[in-house]
Amino acid sequence: MHASDPDRSLEVNGSFTASYRHTLRFTTGVLRPENATLVDVFSNAHTSDSVATHSPGNAPNRVLAFLDKGVLARQPDLPGRLCDYAQAHADRITLPQPALTVPGGERCKNDKTVFDDICRAIHDAKLCRHSFVLAIGGGAMLDAVGFAAAVAHRGIRLVRLPTTTLAQADAGVGVKNGINSFGKKNYLGTFAPPWAVINDADFLTTLDDRDWRAGFSEAVKVSLVKDPALFDRISTTATAITQRDTDAALPIIQRCARLHLQHIVEGGDPFESSKTRPLDFGHWSAHKLEQMTNYRLRHGEAVAIGIALDVAYSALLGMLGWRQAEAITQCLTDLGFSLHDSAVQDGATLLEGLAEFREHLGGPLCITLLAGIGRPVDVHEIDRDLMLRAIDHLQAQPACR
Amino acid sequence: MHASDPDRSLEVNGSFTASYRHTLRFTTGVLRPENATLVDVFSNAHTSDSVATHSPGNAPNRVLAFLDKGVLARQPDLPGRLCDYAQAHADRITLPQPALTVPGGERCKNDKTVFDDICRAIHDAKLCRHSFVLAIGGGAMLDAVGFAAAVAHRGIRLVRLPTTTLAQADAGVGVKNGINSFGKKNYLGTFAPPWAVINDADFLTTLDDRDWRAGFSEAVKVSLVKDPALFDRISTTATAITQRDTDAALPIIQRCARLHLQHIVEGGDPFESSKTRPLDFGHWSAHKLEQMTNYRLRHGEAVAIGIALDVAYSALLGMLGWRQAEAITQCLTDLGFSLHDSAVQDGATLLEGLAEFREHLGGPLCITLLAGIGRPVDVHEIDRDLMLRAIDHLQAQPACR
Repeated sequence: MHASDPDRSLEVNGSFTASYRHTLRFTTGVLRPENATLVDVFSNAHTSDSVATHSPGNAPNRVLAFLDKGVLARQPDLPGRLCDYAQAHADRITLPQPALTVPGGERCKNDKTVFDDICRAIHDAKLCRHSFVLAIGGGAMLDAVGFAAAVAHRGIRLVRLPTTTLAQADAGVGVKNGINSFGKKNYLGTFAPPWAVINDADFLTTLDDRDWRAGFSEAVKVSLVKDPALFDRISTTATAITQRDTDAALPIIQRCARLHLQHIVEGGDPFESSKTRPLDFGHWSAHKLEQMTNYRLRHGEAVAIGIALDVAYSALLGMLGWRQAEAITQCLTDLGFSLHDSAVQDGATLLEGLAEFREHLGGPLCITLLAGIGRPVDVHEIDRDLMLRAIDHLQAQPACR
Repeated sequence: MHASDPDRSLEVNGSFTASYRHTLRFTTGVLRPENATLVDVFSNAHTSDSVATHSPGNAPNRVLAFLDKGVLARQPDLPGRLCDYAQAHADRITLPQPALTVPGGERCKNDKTVFDDICRAIHDAKLCRHSFVLAIGGGAMLDAVGFAAAVAHRGIRLVRLPTTTLAQADAGVGVKNGINSFGKKNYLGTFAPPWAVINDADFLTTLDDRDWRAGFSEAVKVSLVKDPALFDRISTTATAITQRDTDAALPIIQRCARLHLQHIVEGGDPFESSKTRPLDFGHWSAHKLEQMTNYRLRHGEAVAIGIALDVAYSALLGMLGWRQAEAITQCLTDLGFSLHDSAVQDGATLLEGLAEFREHLGGPLCITLLAGIGRPVDVHEIDRDLMLRAIDHLQAQPACR
């Protein structure tokens, strides 16, 4: 074409791929100076550019840490321990400043100034795209910090240290981030695989019972769509879990995190461009319930109700046997979840969640139901009257707390 | 691991790829009802999910159009023509509302409320991730609209209709978007391949001389790092280009767009995770000059100065022969560019652009210089005194306007 006349109707197509690695580490005592898990992930050269981040003679990696205020309240010595850790590994990492705190919980995703402040802190610390943001906190805080890191300089490397059961089992392992906007959960965000995720089991021992419990609804969800044996395990250990038995709980959290990672890596649709998203089972109503209760219900609590609702609908549809439906409900209540809430009674508003869910995913409506434990089925229509009956059915469930 | 005791220090790694297609179309009269170029790109099923967007029986694609105010001023009938076009293809596309206007030029990237307004418009139109945003305008407006589309619902499909020489040759073809923040150009943004880019040559005939000229500095840049024959062609046709000779100009714009796309698709680093970025030749000072002049200099004008500066530096370094350096300077002045500006005289401030450029790209400093036309060389250090001499050298260049 070069030396020719201009071709005024020309087509040029090209295709390319981008490669990503997903690194997940389980450990305890992540900030003990002798534990190299954290410092090692910064030094791991594992991006598509095959440029080593750290090699002898290189400057130490610059790491700006953000800390969930809820974590700080439970572990006030954490910023000091982080500084000590960096000091012990001064040849490999450097903190431009002590850890910055960020409000935890859904509040940090609802308040746009939190996001703006995180962006400004990243700017003021002069981070570059080869620096790191380290986010230590619950799922909501990881989402807000992750979104800022993903758009500053078009993407700064993010290392997540999830501190709640929910974040360690589910949200913290994923490739998504986001903040709420226009009254919609996660309306603004990106798909951005983290550089690494480190699950430190010690964080879980400091949680209050409510935050401890919340993550296990996502565990039930994953088991229902992917792993019947995991569901059995959760069911038989539910009481031990509520008693904070770490030996019972940790294998379940680990299994969930691995199933989640496996879904991203092997599922063929890491950035969710297709219509089917089994990991969103129970989530259409959960997202709406969070919004309807002004986030009084935590995500995990809303997901427990959302699972119970779609399980009841599946059973009313004749797709799922009532015995299995009851086993699922029993498991959730054994874990300590309330399966009804005053917000659920407003069925008309709750059903608006179907349209919002469709819009957020894109394309035609696609809702995952169950034909059995470990047998997800996608449907593209929801019968309003039957769903209202499922809502009524939920009201008959016991309130646990 | 499933039934075992919890392993408290476990590593799990996974890798995955994401596939992208890049579609570039050249046409004229893109909104003439009989021209199917635009409606065809919406219907093209070409994402990794292999789900057809449109097939007989499917609902028409929803398309929210944003229009650069500068384009609207020159073509006030454009919104009406777009409506007529959609009407003529009502079985395949539907506009939820008439085109929304967005301020053009760098102003729309500096004013955060413009970005917020675009996000709100996307929300209010209830676009989903299978809907489309259509952006019609210059490079700056495409960047701002593109950023909003990339983060709303974590990414809505974007079709770009670049309307300036610069956007058609360069910015509009790329995979980047962004807005300015904290006084830094493109501080916030993402890498997000567009669904399709359509270059309609008719838009170029409506440009004023300044906007017409601006794109050719990027053409010179691409030719210097990738295509000596293209440089010769620009040099020999520079006068014709200044006389708005479309037959001379269009092949150059097309060649640039194709080289840019080729770099993305075949360069192995579409999202710029490595340190070398030849298409940023001349840009470290260009970005700083735009900021220093409060965007009085347009991007293409600043790039012309940036090229001349790094060419002079390459020659002073003894890397590039003076004869070639002068040929490049001559080509730029023949195209009508001024190669000095009062802002250039503030060498100390201009040199701050080196550090900002390094920070934006990440990692060690990497500046592309020239060892010859078509022979880019990356260097990792800049001699301040020599660069100040290069700045002095620029002052001796003729001012063209």
